[in-house]
Amino acid sequence: MSGQDRRAVDTLEAIGARAQAASLKMARTSGAQRNAALEAIAIRIDGARSALLAANRADLEAAAAAGLEAALFDRLTLDDKTVSSMIEGLRQVARLPDPIGAISDLALRPSGMQVGRMRVPIGVVAIIYEARPNVTVDAAALCIKSGNATILRGGSEAIRCNGALCELIMAGLAEAGLPVDAVQLLRDTDRTLVTRMAQMSGVIDVIVPRGGRGLIEALMEVARVPLIKHLEGICHVYVDEGADLEMALAIADNAKTQRLGTCNTMETLLVHRSIAPHWLPRLAQVYRAKGVELRGDPATCVLIPDARAASEADWRTEYLAAILAIRVVDSFDAAVDHINTYGSHHTDAIVTGDDGHAQRFLREVDSASVMVNVSTRMADGFEYGLGAEIGISNNKLHARGPVGLEGLTSLKWVVLGNGQLRT
Amino acid sequence: MSGQDRRAVDTLEAIGARAQAASLKMARTSGAQRNAALEAIAIRIDGARSALLAANRADLEAAAAAGLEAALFDRLTLDDKTVSSMIEGLRQVARLPDPIGAISDLALRPSGMQVGRMRVPIGVVAIIYEARPNVTVDAAALCIKSGNATILRGGSEAIRCNGALCELIMAGLAEAGLPVDAVQLLRDTDRTLVTRMAQMSGVIDVIVPRGGRGLIEALMEVARVPLIKHLEGICHVYVDEGADLEMALAIADNAKTQRLGTCNTMETLLVHRSIAPHWLPRLAQVYRAKGVELRGDPATCVLIPDARAASEADWRTEYLAAILAIRVVDSFDAAVDHINTYGSHHTDAIVTGDDGHAQRFLREVDSASVMVNVSTRMADGFEYGLGAEIGISNNKLHARGPVGLEGLTSLKWVVLGNGQLRT
Repeated sequence: MSGQDRRAVDTLEAIGARAQAASLKMARTSGAQRNAALEAIAIRIDGARSALLAANRADLEAAAAAGLEAALFDRLTLDDKTVSSMIEGLRQVARLPDPIGAISDLALRPSGMQVGRMRVPIGVVAIIYEARPNVTVDAAALCIKSGNATILRGGSEAIRCNGALCELIMAGLAEAGLPVDAVQLLRDTDRTLVTRMAQMSGVIDVIVPRGGRGLIEALMEVARVPLIKHLEGICHVYVDEGADLEMALAIADNAKTQRLGTCNTMETLLVHRSIAPHWLPRLAQVYRAKGVELRGDPATCVLIPDARAASEADWRTEYLAAILAIRVVDSFDAAVDHINTYGSHHTDAIVTGDDGHAQRFLREVDSASVMVNVSTRMADGFEYGLGAEIGISNNKLHARGPVGLEGLTSLKWVVLGNGQLRT
Repeated sequence: MSGQDRRAVDTLEAIGARAQAASLKMARTSGAQRNAALEAIAIRIDGARSALLAANRADLEAAAAAGLEAALFDRLTLDDKTVSSMIEGLRQVARLPDPIGAISDLALRPSGMQVGRMRVPIGVVAIIYEARPNVTVDAAALCIKSGNATILRGGSEAIRCNGALCELIMAGLAEAGLPVDAVQLLRDTDRTLVTRMAQMSGVIDVIVPRGGRGLIEALMEVARVPLIKHLEGICHVYVDEGADLEMALAIADNAKTQRLGTCNTMETLLVHRSIAPHWLPRLAQVYRAKGVELRGDPATCVLIPDARAASEADWRTEYLAAILAIRVVDSFDAAVDHINTYGSHHTDAIVTGDDGHAQRFLREVDSASVMVNVSTRMADGFEYGLGAEIGISNNKLHARGPVGLEGLTSLKWVVLGNGQLRT
């Protein structure tokens, strides 16, 4: 290991130790203190607009010189309006109920003990994310509100702006009497440090990796720290026999075209054989007008002559583009089987008028979000009432689907007795 | 890879594929069907007592020939009474409420959608455990009740009896119309297969490794599948200033000596300085009478002359033996700091008459179970009302502390709408 590497590793370990110490202090804070910190940060960001925009300009100039692609450039860009949304975001999080400290399900046991569970911070949460300065503030806000200490590792292109934001966050924490190390930015964006973080079990309690599949799969290979993973969304809409066809048309359109590049966008449409002949050609017109390429099974290709033949690989592809795979199915069961076989267990919807099918779909489709008569695009923390979202989890354990404050907490057992012994 | 290895790997993959298929069927079953399977298994075990005891005798003979140590031999041994407990265990699990299918917190959102969460099986659960045939039945019962498919990998010494039990379990599943592959025994007990299982993400959803720290740490090194880990319990009792000293005596005695080798046994006792002079010598008498070796900090060694000086390593040791570390602390805060620094976040108790300290202890001690005026030995699934326990988890995410049926389930989002679109 070179001297340079050693210093980088030392720094990460020092950051981890400070985060651990801060997490114990954070666990003792009141909701009022944590909200005061959020408000102090909001005020400081408001007062530092020109400095933040200047730091962002420096990031943008460096990114332009390095030839960053347009979509990423767009996400990196701050303006006065996005700074205002950061501030409003902090205040929205402050207004959410305190997720910490409540004891639930306290029950008297035959021994005379009372046993319940208390919601507490997880401890140290690391968040790895793309070059978007607004995520720095959102992530910090959710971690502060939930009483955790956090290590933020944003995309390297945003490092100047993230550094400036993190100074303001730490000053706000100090002002509210909270430990400044509760939010630390990993300024060294060397990729090997991300791998090191994933091995710091006993120091880091959970990692939320946002960003590409490549990053997450690399972390999965080496991680000893639990990951709240964002993997792909191969989302389906199944249009059942007897569905309201106008509603189905609107949902299929919205789920595919409202935004092409998100994880909750529909990638495969399943249609019951009995309605396909009259409904699919109408739908094809809608997509044609919007430039969506259609790939279908043989039955679909008969009904939509300009559809390409879908291959087996199409059923397993997250296009994130103006492409849709369509399959005609013989039955409700065939639709459920297709989704459970080819999907990514993310978000799947049925359009149906049959309550029995609706109930079975909810139960039998093994996905984080199962929906009846709703566009898959509605799978979202704000739409679900979480108030804010740190991401959408593909995990089955702990946080599944949209992750809000609750996903950043843990439940511990509390036991109240008067001398109970084991006999 | 030799032909032998290849066959073993193929078999594991075949088992995994069958478990996955069975898990989807299990997710569609009713609670009544799953309970019928448990009853059918109970009846079959009852009818096969002599065959089971014969299989167990063959295991015991092989174990004796191999020189298995006495404690393990004891756990391996079945008799008519332990078979009866298996049967009663199955019926107890059948009587528990169905953990599957309930929708909680259904709320109407501003969009008009209703959003809630449904408790569902996790999918495929692998359980790795010691050579104890009763665990085969307990684990199968909990997984069937919670609608999962399970792969059981018991200790090799119990392989004949486990094989016989698994045949009965599969026959019971078939009788109730459930997929027989919902419970499969991994008959090849080659250790490398355990490692392979831990890498079968996408097939196995979670692994519950019971058994030694060595096994669990080896799995943590390679696992891509989430683990519900049983690691060590370095459990504390802190006797606060103003505690009921008789209660403290009884709790300290019970927590250390009621059973020495369990994870919820006390390993370190912390005593407030103000009560140590009169209380510790009395306590020492109790332990002396029971042959417990005491290791103390300097203040303790002054008060208990026959105590050995404790080293730093003692505070971090899970003795699982008749040894106790004792430390005199200056304050409540010092006690909490000691526990959070040296403990294993498993189970910790305070004995106190001060309600403020009790509340702060619950909040500030970062452990799976935090207790007031109760022996740490009471950290147990049955005592907590879980009805049955698959183990005690050291994880902070998902299942923490005693794990019952809920720990074998997942929460998915259910969304009910009437045409909601994202705008």
